[in-house]
Amino acid sequence: VSAESAHTATHRALERVLAFSDGVFAIAITLLVLDIHLPGEFEREASDAALRAKLAELLPSMVGYVVSFFVIGEFWRAHLGKFRRIVAYDDTLLMLNLLLLLIVGFLPFPTAVVARHTNTVSAMLYGGSMAAAGLVSAAMWAYAVRRGLTDVRETREMMRGLIGRLLAPALFLVSIAVAFVNPQTTERMWWLAIPAAWLARRLEPRPPVEP
Amino acid sequence: VSAESAHTATHRALERVLAFSDGVFAIAITLLVLDIHLPGEFEREASDAALRAKLAELLPSMVGYVVSFFVIGEFWRAHLGKFRRIVAYDDTLLMLNLLLLLIVGFLPFPTAVVARHTNTVSAMLYGGSMAAAGLVSAAMWAYAVRRGLTDVRETREMMRGLIGRLLAPALFLVSIAVAFVNPQTTERMWWLAIPAAWLARRLEPRPPVEP
Amino acid sequence: VSAESAHTATHRALERVLAFSDGVFAIAITLLVLDIHLPGEFEREASDAALRAKLAELLPSMVGYVVSFFVIGEFWRAHLGKFRRIVAYDDTLLMLNLLLLLIVGFLPFPTAVVARHTNTVSAMLYGGSMAAAGLVSAAMWAYAVRRGLTDVRETREMMRGLIGRLLAPALFLVSIAVAFVNPQTTERMWWLAIPAAWLARRLEPRPPVEP
Amino acid sequence: VSAESAHTATHRALERVLAFSDGVFAIAITLLVLDIHLPGEFEREASDAALRAKLAELLPSMVGYVVSFFVIGEFWRAHLGKFRRIVAYDDTLLMLNLLLLLIVGFLPFPTAVVARHTNTVSAMLYGGSMAAAGLVSAAMWAYAVRRGLTDVRETREMMRGLIGRLLAPALFLVSIAVAFVNPQTTERMWWLAIPAAWLARRLEPRPPVEP
Repeated sequence: VSAESAHTATHRALERVLAFSDGVFAIAITLLVLDIHLPGEFEREASDAALRAKLAELLPSMVGYVVSFFVIGEFWRAHLGKFRRIVAYDDTLLMLNLLLLLIVGFLPFPTAVVARHTNTVSAMLYGGSMAAAGLVSAAMWAYAVRRGLTDVRETREMMRGLIGRLLAPALFLVSIAVAFVNPQTTERMWWLAIPAAWLARRLEPRPPVEP
Repeated sequence: VSAESAHTATHRALERVLAFSDGVFAIAITLLVLDIHLPGEFEREASDAALRAKLAELLPSMVGYVVSFFVIGEFWRAHLGKFRRIVAYDDTLLMLNLLLLLIVGFLPFPTAVVARHTNTVSAMLYGGSMAAAGLVSAAMWAYAVRRGLTDVRETREMMRGLIGRLLAPALFLVSIAVAFVNPQTTERMWWLAIPAAWLARRLEPRPPVEP
Repeated sequence: VSAESAHTATHRALERVLAFSDGVFAIAITLLVLDIHLPGEFEREASDAALRAKLAELLPSMVGYVVSFFVIGEFWRAHLGKFRRIVAYDDTLLMLNLLLLLIVGFLPFPTAVVARHTNTVSAMLYGGSMAAAGLVSAAMWAYAVRRGLTDVRETREMMRGLIGRLLAPALFLVSIAVAFVNPQTTERMWWLAIPAAWLARRLEPRPPVEP
Repeated sequence: VSAESAHTATHRALERVLAFSDGVFAIAITLLVLDIHLPGEFEREASDAALRAKLAELLPSMVGYVVSFFVIGEFWRAHLGKFRRIVAYDDTLLMLNLLLLLIVGFLPFPTAVVARHTNTVSAMLYGGSMAAAGLVSAAMWAYAVRRGLTDVRETREMMRGLIGRLLAPALFLVSIAVAFVNPQTTERMWWLAIPAAWLARRLEPRPPVEP
């Protein structure tokens, strides 16, 4: 087997890792839509008022679906960005990726809980899941760069990217501590994840510009 | 990193965007089949008449499944057509695509509601969802062309395609207004979406003919 | 745009058609596993006897899952075989493919019904679904060959493949007629679909042998 | 049709086999997350204590999800490894692959049973499913090597890989026998599957090193 074909085999195997990951992301991102349905016994040809009341009951489920879609969508976008630069893999990277997918697949549950409840337990569950996903995501990147599995060579560029990736997990860890005092404040803090994600994106090593 | 490999990385990342999108489309299109099942407690070896009555009860679910399949199938076909011409992407296009997938993943719910109810609320829910999906779909195309992310260069061709893509959303927006007067008429208007889709397809920039 | 890139765009779009189809097949083939679960209220640490009794109740669901897996697996294998020879597509082929996926996504339902019931209605539902899937599958092939969307040139080879593909649908159509007299006989006739599939496979145009 | 294009057609068809397999793996691996949800009637704005009690009830479901994720993840990793070396396929290999996917799709069920019960029946169900998946996985590899569908040429290398692959199934078969005496011991034995998987990985034919 020549070096060329070994390279091709790695390339193809990496594509399978991504195809499998995309499959899990696609399932996780649509999962909460299953919560949005009228009860089977709901009478046919209901009046406007009855249907409007029923839809109002489903509102927390709809909010949960939209939030979950954008949160998991952002993790997917980060995964897409990382694997633009990752050109090889080993068993540890596969394991970290599996761990990330495990948490991402679980995210719809804490999102659904938080859409309906505001207390210390719900805040810990959601904050903890988000922090865990962010930390594993950052660990994957750090591992891949250190093991030379990426095409990024400059240490400074890598460090900046890593700092960006740790902003959101740090925010969520702090928010868990706040939840013991005031869960409402915790939920308000989470809105900071949006500028944190924006900043992380800006600090990311950019792909080389195409001519 | 040479220009060549940067081009390849973009190409591969774009393929992941499509693979992820196809995954969400595939899940959304099969989702309503979950509504079609016999209740677990349904007696084994039921008589012909009992089974026929049960199947008759499931008829609105089956109609919902078929309608949803063709509607989402048409959005998928439009997505396929658009991305034959889109050769690059940026964060905004990704966000618009995510928004489209969010609405497409939600479509089975209004379809199931409309299969069982005919009133102002159900008409607004379905008409609004369809208009939103169509508008986001058109916005994606307009954005991609303006930002030079496609291989379409001629402005006139682009304009024609855009007009076609706005026919169906305009129809659905008008139908919502009609729903306040007469929801039955709204549902009848939706059949016009079929010729509108056909016309949109004809106005679309055609892929270059293969020799 | 050169002929070369037009060819590449067609090739990539065709790959998306297949990726989307594979997604729907993968969902349809695993759908019946959702029927196999212990009721939530089932007591923890149940005795051997209680658990064995519960599993026995789930037996028709398990049989349904296995049958559905091999039936949909066979339709997938036929799809794989067809698209080894199909090198281009048009809107009609996309529509036929969508129709095939619609029926394949529906197949778990009649399979689950037949796993629990044996009467005229269940026999018509299952036999009719299988016949419809087989006929659409054959229509796709006939259309693709006639429109020159395949790399098969010899008419005789095409004809043999088509006869093979029509064996199973013909069997299911005959079985529906028999169901009005004796549904038990109908179910026994379905076993003939296994040799019919084997024969269809032998009559199929073989891919050219690799050296 | 030249040999070159026949080779390309095989390559593309093999990619579809993998895409379809990855789809089934992705669905199976996320399936148990569906068991983790709050009951719909669960009151909004529940107290901390009520929510904590509810989450505690869901703990076996969460354990089941995590175990299932890593077990199916390991089967997926083995599949990835095997198909790095498999360069062609025939109908028998497709059938074995389908059989493997059938068992993998079923694995969430015995995992959920074992997460809640410890008795002879649950031990047989889980041990039997795991042994079956391992044996089919090993059979796929043995068949592919014997039929020359891989790029592995050395018999010794193949034999070592096969011994590794049979360690875990042998362990599970022995554990079933033990279950008739003491199901608790059976469950403890299953932890040995982790070092067995590690050993199997070491004995696997390594992909050629890239320069």
